[in-house]
Order: sequence, then C-alpha cells, then structure tokens
Amino acid sequence: MRELDPPIRSRPIYEGRIVNLRESRYRRPDGMEVDREVMDHPGAVVMVPVEDEHVLLVRQPREAVERYTLELPAGKLDVAGEVPLEAAKRELREEVGRTAAAWRDLGGFYTAPAIITEYIHCFLATDLTEVPTTASAEEAIEVERRPFSDLPRLVEREVEDAKSLVGLLRLARMHGI
Amino acid sequence: MRELDPPIRSRPIYEGRIVNLRESRYRRPDGMEVDREVMDHPGAVVMVPVEDEHVLLVRQPREAVERYTLELPAGKLDVAGEVPLEAAKRELREEVGRTAAAWRDLGGFYTAPAIITEYIHCFLATDLTEVPTTASAEEAIEVERRPFSDLPRLVEREVEDAKSLVGLLRLARMHGI
Repeated sequence: MRELDPPIRSRPIYEGRIVNLRESRYRRPDGMEVDREVMDHPGAVVMVPVEDEHVLLVRQPREAVERYTLELPAGKLDVAGEVPLEAAKRELREEVGRTAAAWRDLGGFYTAPAIITEYIHCFLATDLTEVPTTASAEEAIEVERRPFSDLPRLVEREVEDAKSLVGLLRLARMHGI
Repeated sequence: MRELDPPIRSRPIYEGRIVNLRESRYRRPDGMEVDREVMDHPGAVVMVPVEDEHVLLVRQPREAVERYTLELPAGKLDVAGEVPLEAAKRELREEVGRTAAAWRDLGGFYTAPAIITEYIHCFLATDLTEVPTTASAEEAIEVERRPFSDLPRLVEREVEDAKSLVGLLRLARMHGI
C-alpha cells in the first residue's frame, strides 16, 4: 500500500486518560499540505473465540453511545509496541475467562483512518479452556455464548459494533453460514 | 437493546474543526458512576455501490494512519439530524460520481462505542447512473471499479478499514462469494 510521510509538525491538543489528541500538518507527495486533527491510539486486538460451534461475545455498558452493546471481546495494547498476540491472550482471559491452544491471525484493520491511528488485530481463538475471568467490576462484562446458528441474526441485527461485525462476518464466511 | 442514561454532567475539553471532545460522568442502573472521555460525532454513511457485478471503491490519503487506503465511499452527516439516505445520495455523487435508482438499508453500526458517538448507516446502492464527481482536490479521491471476483482478496487483504470491511463482507455474503 502506498504510504504518506509522517507529519512535518505537530501540536498536542489534549492528553487524557484514554485519548491523546494532536493537530498535525502533513505534506503529500504532490506537495499539498493539509492539517489534520488526529487521535493517537496504541492499537488494539479483537478476538473471535470459538468452542463447540459457539462463539463467545461480551455485553457491556458503553457510555459514549448510551447503550449496552454486544461485541466480540477486545482490548487495547498495553503499549504501542506490545505484541498483538500477547494482548489477545491477556484480554481473552480477562474478558471471557478462556485460554486458547490455537490462534489464527485473521488480518487487521483501522478503526477510523480519517481520525484515529488505531489498528485492530483480529484473531480466531480455538481449543479453549475455561479459567477465572479477571475483568474489573467497572467493566461490568457479561459473557454470552451463542451457537453458530445465531450468526445470521448477530451480523444482521444484534451486533452494532464495527470491529465485532468484521470478526463475526469473517467467522460466518469461514463456515459458509 | 438496553439503554444507559445520558451523562449527569459534562465538561467540554476541545472543540475543533472535526473533533469535539468532552469528559462526562454517567450513572449506571446499579448506581455506579463512571467518567468517560467522549468524542462527539454527528454520524456517518457508508455506501456499497454496485454496477454490472462490480463494486466501486475509493482510494485516498488518510493522514492519521499515514497511508493511502482503499475504502467504500462514505461521509459524515452534515448535521446530527440529517436523514442518512440524503447524506448517502450526496456523498455517492460527490465521491464516485454516481446516482442510484435503488437503495437498500443494510443496517448500521458504531465505529468505536467505547469512545465515539459515531453511528454509521450502511446502504447498498444499485441501478447506478454516471454523473460528474464533485469531490474537492484536497480529498484527492481515486475511484476503483472492482469485479465481484476480487471480493475475496479485498476482504482478506486489500481493505483495512473497518466500515468498508463490514460493507464488503455483507456484499460477499449476499452473493455467496
């Protein structure tokens, strides 16, 4: 894929607990200069955990959208350089209480390339073993174990989260569902 | 889907050209109060434009991720209350130079429900007619018309944008590709 140069200058706008925002000026190959507001993000992982023809999902409060959403388990990289598979293993254990003996990289994607640097690595996790979850009370996560036969209604109606739809649509595609 | 109450108080952090950021406190049904950094967004549309077993994509510079990305055409609602189909018609004309006689709502989704209010409405657009594009030079959009037979490599490798993957995976699913 063709690349763009890093910004020629940047000005921090805000550094929060989760969000870091900056304004940066970029010069394109044709010489045009453009200013962009950019949210920095260390990257994330999303997991498609499968056991006995069921997929494990999480339901949790998402204040920004004022809903409890149904999503695939996911999480941020601890630091920008963390190995994605390590983050995936940690988050799978924390959120759904499973370890996986088999992992497969399904390919990653940008959350919103117009505004956030976040890249999400997507993994299929199989050969699962149950372990205690370690999610905090604040996360308020409920695990839902759904049969493959629910995949059509999950991808057509129930799931309204972009990264989770990508993972579930890939799972459905993989199994011809 | 279960809902959460709107914030009990909010503090603006930053109002930019594209981004509005606030910190808000929410009270959950169980009484727990949590603070969240939230990016406000009016919502958006993404279109899956199909003609003669080809899908129309756009390649454009995305400074935030320092890449030229291949995406489905998309755009923001002009205002939070704009009718999504009207925005879809406008953006389809602007970005790929087509009007569509047939529109189908494929169902929407949140971009990143942990942090952004953005909801993206996804439409299939068919019965296309060519018209002049009206994208600005700054957008630097190149249209790519790709046959359905490219869908597997588009969804497995070439496209790395979450909203576009959802639209293309739905198109592939619809046609059993």
